[in-house]
Amino acid sequence: MSTVADSAFLRACRREPVPRTPVWFMRQAGRSLPEYRRIREGVGMLASCRRPDLVCEITLQPVRRHGVDAAILFSDIVVPVAAAGVDLDIKPGVGPVVAEPIRAAADVDRLRPLTAGDVDFVAEAVRLLVAELGGTPLIGFAGAPFTLASYLVEGGPSRTHARTKALMYGAPQVWHALCAKLAEITRAFLRVQIDAGVSAVQLFDSWAGALSLADYRRFVLPHSTAVLRGLTVPRIHFGVGTGHLLAAMADAGADVVGVDWRTPLDTATAAVGPDHALQGNLDPSVLLAPWDVVEIEVRRVLTEAKAAPGHVFNLGHGVLPETDPDVLTRVTDLVHRAA
Amino acid sequence: MSTVADSAFLRACRREPVPRTPVWFMRQAGRSLPEYRRIREGVGMLASCRRPDLVCEITLQPVRRHGVDAAILFSDIVVPVAAAGVDLDIKPGVGPVVAEPIRAAADVDRLRPLTAGDVDFVAEAVRLLVAELGGTPLIGFAGAPFTLASYLVEGGPSRTHARTKALMYGAPQVWHALCAKLAEITRAFLRVQIDAGVSAVQLFDSWAGALSLADYRRFVLPHSTAVLRGLTVPRIHFGVGTGHLLAAMADAGADVVGVDWRTPLDTATAAVGPDHALQGNLDPSVLLAPWDVVEIEVRRVLTEAKAAPGHVFNLGHGVLPETDPDVLTRVTDLVHRAA
Repeated sequence: MSTVADSAFLRACRREPVPRTPVWFMRQAGRSLPEYRRIREGVGMLASCRRPDLVCEITLQPVRRHGVDAAILFSDIVVPVAAAGVDLDIKPGVGPVVAEPIRAAADVDRLRPLTAGDVDFVAEAVRLLVAELGGTPLIGFAGAPFTLASYLVEGGPSRTHARTKALMYGAPQVWHALCAKLAEITRAFLRVQIDAGVSAVQLFDSWAGALSLADYRRFVLPHSTAVLRGLTVPRIHFGVGTGHLLAAMADAGADVVGVDWRTPLDTATAAVGPDHALQGNLDPSVLLAPWDVVEIEVRRVLTEAKAAPGHVFNLGHGVLPETDPDVLTRVTDLVHRAA
Repeated sequence: MSTVADSAFLRACRREPVPRTPVWFMRQAGRSLPEYRRIREGVGMLASCRRPDLVCEITLQPVRRHGVDAAILFSDIVVPVAAAGVDLDIKPGVGPVVAEPIRAAADVDRLRPLTAGDVDFVAEAVRLLVAELGGTPLIGFAGAPFTLASYLVEGGPSRTHARTKALMYGAPQVWHALCAKLAEITRAFLRVQIDAGVSAVQLFDSWAGALSLADYRRFVLPHSTAVLRGLTVPRIHFGVGTGHLLAAMADAGADVVGVDWRTPLDTATAAVGPDHALQGNLDPSVLLAPWDVVEIEVRRVLTEAKAAPGHVFNLGHGVLPETDPDVLTRVTDLVHRAA
């Protein structure tokens, strides 16, 4: 059995030759698995993220079941801001709901830094997992400042991010102060995970695709760069609908750029250049189609990835809850067997 | 006063020189206007679309108030499918909800064509409007087959369009049969509007941006082409998050390609070439910022549009309900005054 450092996943992140393409799935630990739905019964999302035993079990479930090449820490992007004292809850079917949205300088002043002690439960979960996982790498996890800011400013999920952008355009000093604080919280959260033993981190900027490249470079890139700069493990940087932002997201300090299904991986390679590996990018909806379609699409992704200097197979977004988990197992096998 | 045929709007659509850049706003007739909220009180969305007097008044409101260069028929993308017998309602705060979603060949068989008699109320509204509008052109309106199919397959709005894509990938024959029928309905709906006197049409493919270019070309483009081919008035074709699809959307038969705020208009011009005018593309959220920011952004859009062979100023998506209508009036004036 290979060591973590020599795993196909970390080799691909470092753009080194791999014996087979490594594969994991965003939201592999989650509602597609009956064993996940069972263990979460009666336990709220935030509560489950705070219980190291549950985090450990949930994170391991897809590794056991599918034989994927990496585990990803079960968490939620609002965990660090909640740990830093922001009053919020994750409502089933809705998402994060913030009691007092942040819309002015005084609201930003209320945000306090995150200390390692605030997220003991995360460090503990990582330690448990590293002991259990053996040669399988564990990926740490955080939401990026823009996406966190959107939740905090809107007070919950938003299709338009209108209040967020209004703050950004209308009060750029407040915006930058907010994002600088969120970058510190996020960086502290990732360092806790790295210190406890994760082998890589993924920074999710789920909503960054809502911005033009010019706005991304001006309002977001400095803060995501502050999060990622100088971290000592491979850094994956992912967002949805970010075809126009891939080079900028690489510039933020990514070793691996996550790509959604809208941008073919050969196009993405041309955009980000030879110094970045890619992760992605099967459309999660394809997994709801018959197997012959799934197989064609998986092979297409692998073919388009040949141009990339490193490739971690993944979906272009998270596993849909209605996905048959057996299909995920078959995809894992197919990627492993493919030449 | 200029004639409709010689209006700045139609000249820009035809890529002819204009005395000033024409401007209108998607969803200019809508919730940003107090007079709209007043007149809609107690009247459901579909009911209001079926009353020619109301459609006429609502369509005229923003023309009177802002002095925009075009009116757009007040309607909803589900109006023609509802008129063709699909049992659906538009729920406030949710969107269209379909009683019996379409997910199999038998469901597609139930869909019947649209006849002119089904939408008498639309023809009547257009005739009233053309008489009232004088030299101001009226834009007709329809939703494109993919977006309509998504509502019908999902049963309502969807973030992932997972069932829609599952049908598309898993049962392509059923998918194409559904979209062919929707294209016929849509084309019939637009022809009713053209016969009654609209000067241009806009085909909204709101959700097309959820697809990769390859999937768009295979599953959507033939049907949008069938809608637009050979129509006798200028055709605007718009979707959100379609930076990667602009050339394909132009290929569908657009005279004018609508562009959201993510793609600068000079980039869009490079993508679609010299044979298409552009429409767009101020981020609607910018209108919530202070005026000096709005002015800078409007001027930026006008500068980036200089590369385009024709430009209709608009937002990159619909007016947000919380927009101050006075800002829309000021933007109209600014665009008209700008060199």
